[in-house]
Amino acid sequence: MSLLSIDEANAQLRANSQVLVVPESCQLQACRGRTLASDVKSNIDVPPADNSAMDGYALRRQDWHGPDQALEISQRIVAGTPPVPLMAGTVARIFTGAGIPDGADMVVMQERCRVDGQSVRIEAVGELGANIRPQGQDIQRGVTVLKKGHRLRAQDLGLIASLGIARIEVLQRLKVAIISTGSELAEPGELAKPGQIYNSNRYMIAALLQQWGFEVVDLGITEDDRQTLTEVMCDAGRKADVMITSGGVSVGEEDHVKAVVEALGHIDMWRIAIKPGKPFAYGEVEGTPFIGLPGNPVSALVTLLVVARPFLFDSQGVVDHEIVPTRQVALFDKKGTARQEYLRVRSGSTGVEIFPQQSSGVLYSTTWGDGLVVKKVGEDIVRGSLVDVIPYALFN
Amino acid sequence: MSLLSIDEANAQLRANSQVLVVPESCQLQACRGRTLASDVKSNIDVPPADNSAMDGYALRRQDWHGPDQALEISQRIVAGTPPVPLMAGTVARIFTGAGIPDGADMVVMQERCRVDGQSVRIEAVGELGANIRPQGQDIQRGVTVLKKGHRLRAQDLGLIASLGIARIEVLQRLKVAIISTGSELAEPGELAKPGQIYNSNRYMIAALLQQWGFEVVDLGITEDDRQTLTEVMCDAGRKADVMITSGGVSVGEEDHVKAVVEALGHIDMWRIAIKPGKPFAYGEVEGTPFIGLPGNPVSALVTLLVVARPFLFDSQGVVDHEIVPTRQVALFDKKGTARQEYLRVRSGSTGVEIFPQQSSGVLYSTTWGDGLVVKKVGEDIVRGSLVDVIPYALFN
Repeated sequence: MSLLSIDEANAQLRANSQVLVVPESCQLQACRGRTLASDVKSNIDVPPADNSAMDGYALRRQDWHGPDQALEISQRIVAGTPPVPLMAGTVARIFTGAGIPDGADMVVMQERCRVDGQSVRIEAVGELGANIRPQGQDIQRGVTVLKKGHRLRAQDLGLIASLGIARIEVLQRLKVAIISTGSELAEPGELAKPGQIYNSNRYMIAALLQQWGFEVVDLGITEDDRQTLTEVMCDAGRKADVMITSGGVSVGEEDHVKAVVEALGHIDMWRIAIKPGKPFAYGEVEGTPFIGLPGNPVSALVTLLVVARPFLFDSQGVVDHEIVPTRQVALFDKKGTARQEYLRVRSGSTGVEIFPQQSSGVLYSTTWGDGLVVKKVGEDIVRGSLVDVIPYALFN
Repeated sequence: MSLLSIDEANAQLRANSQVLVVPESCQLQACRGRTLASDVKSNIDVPPADNSAMDGYALRRQDWHGPDQALEISQRIVAGTPPVPLMAGTVARIFTGAGIPDGADMVVMQERCRVDGQSVRIEAVGELGANIRPQGQDIQRGVTVLKKGHRLRAQDLGLIASLGIARIEVLQRLKVAIISTGSELAEPGELAKPGQIYNSNRYMIAALLQQWGFEVVDLGITEDDRQTLTEVMCDAGRKADVMITSGGVSVGEEDHVKAVVEALGHIDMWRIAIKPGKPFAYGEVEGTPFIGLPGNPVSALVTLLVVARPFLFDSQGVVDHEIVPTRQVALFDKKGTARQEYLRVRSGSTGVEIFPQQSSGVLYSTTWGDGLVVKKVGEDIVRGSLVDVIPYALFN
């Protein structure tokens, strides 16, 4: 078993990663959280034509000779209807977003105008081009606005829609199989037999994978014997792009995952210098990447977030999934250790509080709070100092 | 039209908010992002019985008399199988998570033991209770672990599962109708006529509402005339708990939303002292809350995030939806103004950069970056100083 720093573990995993999914075409409204399979370029100028930034009057500046001059209103232009060329010596009533008529070279806001029947007097005019948003100001035709590998957020869909694009090429959802091992596991809703505990990892892992936009292939709880595990893992390899187990990869004599993966492919057993989360396994089952998370729920959560997540997003073809921790004031003291620790905390207006019981067996420590403090190897945290915090919401 | 600060606007909206949905029972695995309709209490102790924190040997401490004593291994206890009482003067081989047999009062880790056939010699023992996780240590039966109004994350589902609970009471998804107004709007995939622009708000708003766990009732684009708008809004009132329009609530003569809402209920037109996003409307259509976002996409996004979101979450019954901004170093200067500004920025390892073009017409400013700097009324931002940043991911 190799002992690795978190950075080494991530580097090694990601060196092995490749995009495991192929492109497909998808209706824009179904693309939230999907990953672009190719760059999105604009086929149009935005705005598509010069238009008014204000409600007001469009005119040719040289037609204005002073505040007492009455200028005839020769047309009325609302957004969505094309203007006709401006008659010389007249103005056009114009509304925000409406197209500038040929011949007009500025817009005066309505607050500077006095209307009198079919004509208007203008107090003062601005510069040439005033209150006109020129064609292509925001986006020029041909420009790349979003890059291949970008994971689509609400505003990205809005931007693509604004370019008139209704279907895009995205990468298929990564299929991730979940296998829960352990004869000691009972399912929620059943009555646990003496000695059994309820399976929590299955629900937690599935929810995170769904949140990340993956397709979950839930293979349920598997008896911890070689024959059953072998069948389930081969099944996972056929149905999914990646498989994840939780439990069964410690050094205990009762764990069979290692032997089964070894027989079907290969497995590296890692001790990663993080807490919680030390035992972690990576390998391949008949060509399908295999990730073995610890059985303990807090360790499973932390390793899924900080070790497996970057690998999974790489496999999905996402390029921009780095997380920048926030800096917040620690409201606690904590000594440095030989491992990078992920402390369960809760943030408030004055800083982050720590959950008193940091044992990796206590899943409640993760639900009590809203994020993790990252304490580096050897780093002493002193009350009042700034620390790195990752709100759970950033693992999105 | 009243001019309101953002805090006044939120206070006024939220004073009018009430939970608009009723409870329903739901399978745990379908509850990601759902809101608890009642407290979750534990019906069991966690752990359910004393169990071993280590792989090792369980014994009665008083049976150990020194490192040379050979102690018979009288049983083998793995997680998931109930132990039998420990025979006096013997030890039990035990694995992590396995139940402590009656009679044993500590566990010695295996690294301190030398096995010799059916017996073991123990170098040294610890204190009474060593390496035993006592019943109920993490959660005691009857304790509330998650409160009504909590929005469920992956780890919350894991925790609930660990208590053996398979179905929970959640609030129904809030139904939110989206109405896009404006004759100038073309749909992506169509060819825009001269003067038309593509509808982007519909896609952006729908994606955010879905992300927040609401059920979207998309009523499409509505012609900007009174008759059509009246029909669509009445339809929205029948089908949804809240309705949202974008566009049509400025003071322009071409906007009919105001008149229609007034005829069917009431409407308050607000100018909120924020940038982007000044025009905002709130009202009621035949008893259904109405929110009018600006038509401009950046303003629509910002008002949806900072004004509508708290109201919508209140209506969904969510209690913990406050966002705590992060603090990051500004890599730019920006003068204070009379409005609270939401600057579109991108964060990197040295701080946050600003998108050069902060006009509210430029949706690209929101896709270029990953968050908003909140610049308060009158606040001058100076390069190198700390500013409030809300990563988009926190509006989750």
